[in-house]
Amino acid sequence: MMTKQALTDLILEKKTALGLSWADIASGVGLSPTFVTSACLGMNSLKPEFADKLVAILELPAEAKAAIEACPMKTWEQTVPTDPLIYRLYEVVGVYGPTMKELIHEEFGDGIMSAIDFSLDIDREANPAGDRVVITMNGKFLPYKSW
Amino acid sequence: MMTKQALTDLILEKKTALGLSWADIASGVGLSPTFVTSACLGMNSLKPEFADKLVAILELPAEAKAAIEACPMKTWEQTVPTDPLIYRLYEVVGVYGPTMKELIHEEFGDGIMSAIDFSLDIDREANPAGDRVVITMNGKFLPYKSW
Amino acid sequence: MMTKQALTDLILEKKTALGLSWADIASGVGLSPTFVTSACLGMNSLKPEFADKLVAILELPAEAKAAIEACPMKTWEQTVPTDPLIYRLYEVVGVYGPTMKELIHEEFGDGIMSAIDFSLDIDREANPAGDRVVITMNGKFLPYKSW
Amino acid sequence: MMTKQALTDLILEKKTALGLSWADIASGVGLSPTFVTSACLGMNSLKPEFADKLVAILELPAEAKAAIEACPMKTWEQTVPTDPLIYRLYEVVGVYGPTMKELIHEEFGDGIMSAIDFSLDIDREANPAGDRVVITMNGKFLPYKSW
Amino acid sequence: MMTKQALTDLILEKKTALGLSWADIASGVGLSPTFVTSACLGMNSLKPEFADKLVAILELPAEAKAAIEACPMKTWEQTVPTDPLIYRLYEVVGVYGPTMKELIHEEFGDGIMSAIDFSLDIDREANPAGDRVVITMNGKFLPYKSW
Amino acid sequence: MMTKQALTDLILEKKTALGLSWADIASGVGLSPTFVTSACLGMNSLKPEFADKLVAILELPAEAKAAIEACPMKTWEQTVPTDPLIYRLYEVVGVYGPTMKELIHEEFGDGIMSAIDFSLDIDREANPAGDRVVITMNGKFLPYKSW
Amino acid sequence: MMTKQALTDLILEKKTALGLSWADIASGVGLSPTFVTSACLGMNSLKPEFADKLVAILELPAEAKAAIEACPMKTWEQTVPTDPLIYRLYEVVGVYGPTMKELIHEEFGDGIMSAIDFSLDIDREANPAGDRVVITMNGKFLPYKSW
Amino acid sequence: MMTKQALTDLILEKKTALGLSWADIASGVGLSPTFVTSACLGMNSLKPEFADKLVAILELPAEAKAAIEACPMKTWEQTVPTDPLIYRLYEVVGVYGPTMKELIHEEFGDGIMSAIDFSLDIDREANPAGDRVVITMNGKFLPYKSW
Amino acid sequence: MMTKQALTDLILEKKTALGLSWADIASGVGLSPTFVTSACLGMNSLKPEFADKLVAILELPAEAKAAIEACPMKTWEQTVPTDPLIYRLYEVVGVYGPTMKELIHEEFGDGIMSAIDFSLDIDREANPAGDRVVITMNGKFLPYKSW
Amino acid sequence: MMTKQALTDLILEKKTALGLSWADIASGVGLSPTFVTSACLGMNSLKPEFADKLVAILELPAEAKAAIEACPMKTWEQTVPTDPLIYRLYEVVGVYGPTMKELIHEEFGDGIMSAIDFSLDIDREANPAGDRVVITMNGKFLPYKSW
Repeated sequence: MMTKQALTDLILEKKTALGLSWADIASGVGLSPTFVTSACLGMNSLKPEFADKLVAILELPAEAKAAIEACPMKTWEQTVPTDPLIYRLYEVVGVYGPTMKELIHEEFGDGIMSAIDFSLDIDREANPAGDRVVITMNGKFLPYKSW
Repeated sequence: MMTKQALTDLILEKKTALGLSWADIASGVGLSPTFVTSACLGMNSLKPEFADKLVAILELPAEAKAAIEACPMKTWEQTVPTDPLIYRLYEVVGVYGPTMKELIHEEFGDGIMSAIDFSLDIDREANPAGDRVVITMNGKFLPYKSW
Repeated sequence: MMTKQALTDLILEKKTALGLSWADIASGVGLSPTFVTSACLGMNSLKPEFADKLVAILELPAEAKAAIEACPMKTWEQTVPTDPLIYRLYEVVGVYGPTMKELIHEEFGDGIMSAIDFSLDIDREANPAGDRVVITMNGKFLPYKSW
Repeated sequence: MMTKQALTDLILEKKTALGLSWADIASGVGLSPTFVTSACLGMNSLKPEFADKLVAILELPAEAKAAIEACPMKTWEQTVPTDPLIYRLYEVVGVYGPTMKELIHEEFGDGIMSAIDFSLDIDREANPAGDRVVITMNGKFLPYKSW
Repeated sequence: MMTKQALTDLILEKKTALGLSWADIASGVGLSPTFVTSACLGMNSLKPEFADKLVAILELPAEAKAAIEACPMKTWEQTVPTDPLIYRLYEVVGVYGPTMKELIHEEFGDGIMSAIDFSLDIDREANPAGDRVVITMNGKFLPYKSW
Repeated sequence: MMTKQALTDLILEKKTALGLSWADIASGVGLSPTFVTSACLGMNSLKPEFADKLVAILELPAEAKAAIEACPMKTWEQTVPTDPLIYRLYEVVGVYGPTMKELIHEEFGDGIMSAIDFSLDIDREANPAGDRVVITMNGKFLPYKSW
Repeated sequence: MMTKQALTDLILEKKTALGLSWADIASGVGLSPTFVTSACLGMNSLKPEFADKLVAILELPAEAKAAIEACPMKTWEQTVPTDPLIYRLYEVVGVYGPTMKELIHEEFGDGIMSAIDFSLDIDREANPAGDRVVITMNGKFLPYKSW
Repeated sequence: MMTKQALTDLILEKKTALGLSWADIASGVGLSPTFVTSACLGMNSLKPEFADKLVAILELPAEAKAAIEACPMKTWEQTVPTDPLIYRLYEVVGVYGPTMKELIHEEFGDGIMSAIDFSLDIDREANPAGDRVVITMNGKFLPYKSW
Repeated sequence: MMTKQALTDLILEKKTALGLSWADIASGVGLSPTFVTSACLGMNSLKPEFADKLVAILELPAEAKAAIEACPMKTWEQTVPTDPLIYRLYEVVGVYGPTMKELIHEEFGDGIMSAIDFSLDIDREANPAGDRVVITMNGKFLPYKSW
Repeated sequence: MMTKQALTDLILEKKTALGLSWADIASGVGLSPTFVTSACLGMNSLKPEFADKLVAILELPAEAKAAIEACPMKTWEQTVPTDPLIYRLYEVVGVYGPTMKELIHEEFGDGIMSAIDFSLDIDREANPAGDRVVITMNGKFLPYKSW
């Protein structure tokens, strides 16, 4: 079976060759750019009907379909990410993590925000002092169960 | 000078004694709950006019004002946070970090989202299948400068 | 406010002084021994009606109630636990983690077992070759959402 | 000799080619799905009679048999696993480890649950609010010996 | 309840004050010096009849008895020990670990040497070129179970 | 020059092809199974007369001799070993290390047990309750020198 | 697409073959030596007009242009750098980091020096006691925003 | 003797009480603000004549003088600093370290920039787009010696 | 019993009060400055006749003698030392470690230099270009034993 | 350009083929065995006249010369070295590091021993009780500069 890594390499090659953006690809698949990109980078799987569309858009070989649908082993090697763009997000978790914990508990009680029943979107906000990146995370609140 | 830790301990004690929520305190200070909470937990500083209000609301001693205004040394000891609520946010950075990098670069070019010229808000979204936590991050895009 | 650590210390002292087992305490609270013990050790919170009962059984001071109900900051310092009993559980995750991933995906598709909508019980199984410990984990399957 | 890694790669390839599930393979071998899967992933060895059956079911070359029977060097590289499904199990050890220690000592005295004289099963529990994963660990209690 | 650490501090103080060696104490308790010393250092528990003897020999207060009998949380902070005497033992595990694995598997099949159903003794071997330390570890072989 | 790793791979291949056990090989070389196995695994070097015998027994090419005699760079990558058999030995160092330090100092004074002027043997002890592994370490006591 | 690593390898090869210094290359590109070198080493991207010039100077294949313009994933593997030249810079951050924090806060208030809107130059200062390296960092002050 | 930590605590207290800035203190001592601040934070020592002035300016007790003159044990606990201001400097070392190495070797040959025969200054550069922080490091080039 | 840490603190206090250098103290004890200083810092023990002298020179209380004679638990917390003076020595091990290994094996065969039957001295070498530190390590070569 | 690693591999091959010792090679180059060996292992560079001689002695191809003269990126992967010979040197830094710091400061004042303006030699000292390894480090004292 094609590995997730081989799939990602192939997708990046085809994306460049076909001159497609992530937005183009997501539009063709019919899901959000964030989710489709994460699946293309090997961090999520697509359901068969979306996998079919991805294969078509990127002119992937038939065997790629199983790799797209496979449940990924999600791994990252850098405990503290070094890339500046990703590090800033890590820093936000460090600086604002305890604050988010306080406010979520105040509003919802004891529990967490799911990272599985979860979506994430990225938008551009025009601003005369320099445009801004807006990241919106939306996750189901899961209360701790007692038994 | 009162340390940031002593300040936080005192604030938590007064908050409980006065029966105030973070929302109440933020409302009194005139800033968002997220920013005010982070300042109360020692991860941000308040400008003098807001520090005055915080002192008043929480009936803090006069010497607390300087501690609220002091620039904090922002530290966290757990490289990988263990608390489940905070870990889920760390996991989001691991799983979606490369995706966010791809999409921000596609939209804005080479650069990062600032974590300094930055705001973060937390909201509740009603949902019949279980209410949802919505976290919105808003940071200025900073392009890499060449020289 | 009494800290979770102070609460745990007080509970352990009272438990010894009153000659109660965790099973006794759980029975008095009306929840499982596992959940009640985890709350007493500062890793979960109790709802008010159960907190009242715990205060009564262990003859705790009134101020303990708020500490029992508080949402805990769940932390552990040893990335790899050294205590042999706990290490064996860590080893099970290392040895059988990929197997559990394969089998859960085969049965349920892409997703995870929740550690929040979750219960855990411990039982003794009599066996002539030496009694056995039976640990049963029961967590809701959470499918990954696409968007 | 074929390495365990080469064996696992070959098994995964054959499993896909033959359209077999782990349940099918385990049924053919005559052992539990968990144990057979762990052996196929290189984390356990099979006794000769079971190795013969695995070779037959998966149409493996004869030289695979020795690799299946070989005692594996069990290694994992991520001290803290990043895959969300496996991380949740690690989190359970962190959150409930001290609780399990208290309750096993209360019931059995000083000792541990063996991770060697041990079995682990995974089941699905139907539930109208969403089916649940049930993991059952069963290990012999080993009392500390004094001498 | 007296903590294990407080117990160890008290034992060391009394041992010095009474001029006893570990060999003397072990002899009085009726167990091996290794096991008794490990219990005095907080790494094992004694059964009641031995705890009584330890209390008597070291003239410990009555409350020490429960601490001696308590199941210890076995922790060490240095992943790689720095003390030269202890490091050499760690080095032996690094250098000879794979060799011991090969030879135990050759002799016994797949399984491990228990560190729980286990004893360890230390002896002096006279030698004209310099006396030698002899450490003997004796642990039950535990075969992996298949199921 | 053939590397130590290439030598070990070749030895394992030949050992399987010739159907030899480590005990057979050690017997042919005229040294203990532990030392010979450690040299075959690349953790020790053999003197020329023993290297000759190893080459003969395993029908190794002539160029292997220099690799067997070369002083190895002894490395291991896992600070905390994950293989259960080897981990138990690491755990013994953690649990009994301070005890061994106390008892060796009590018997010999300030110094260490050498891991260089050192031997290690593994034996089987028959036992009706299950046979036992006996590991004997024998190292010269080295007193600290003052100057 | 050519990877950043392949690009760097190719640049180093061409640089040697053509006998160019970094100063020569930077001069041809029309940017500072520091920025151009960092782009050649894969730690920055060049805008198209500069990428064209780099391709021309170094006689790179046409496909290299896209790799030069690509936003790099900036990674480094050594948390603490071992190379003595780079370690000294790390040491400077450790020794003078808190001092720089104090003085920047005293002069500018709460905020940071940007590492994105940032430039860095390296110069030689003649000195009879031995010439000196002068490193000048110039980054925009970013004040923390409150909201 | 007063410890460096006690000295720093006392200096910070006096600095606040007397309303002095680091610039004021440095001016009184007659050295640069960077060096004086680093000495006050316990990361450098002052020669006697400067120590006398520091004692006078800050109205320190006589015993502080020896602490100011003592050679400090320079330690920092965070391998990767978390404070955003200090992290950015760490990031600069990661991103530009290999570039600085290339350029210094090109200009000076094999060797390093000393972090001991070294000075560091911090300045403000006015800029209509936002003022900038300028950090200037100046260290003697030390060529590797061959022998 | 007085701990080693308490002993070191007391020695440093007395050394300052009496105006003694390490050279003075070593001279009074009759051993080298290096060994005596290491014993005073808690990293070695002194034999009774030297302990007596140290007590006399530094006017220590009688109970200090047992602490000086006690076998120390040698620990250091920083795997990579941060103090620049000590780090340079760590760097020497990193840079020249493999070289020392090659040359010692070439001269002596397979084995190590003992760090126990070992001495270390520090001298000043006058040099018009700046005086030099000379560190001489002298350790017994220990050949690996085969058995 | 030939990499340093390829250079080292080639040198080791030629050294064996030509039957040369490090002492022979160093003698031919006209520098010390320690420095030459470190350059051959990729941890130092040679000046052109010495590189020429090394090429001649070892019959290296012409292209090796540039690799010998290149400034090396000095890296080591094991923070704590595992090889027993190298570990003992690391242990010496841990055990005697604070002692060396005290004595160098007592003799020279605040500063460090350079690891760049530095030499290291290894000698054999005959001794009837077993020959000894003598390592002599000689580094320029660098005083901290104030400014």
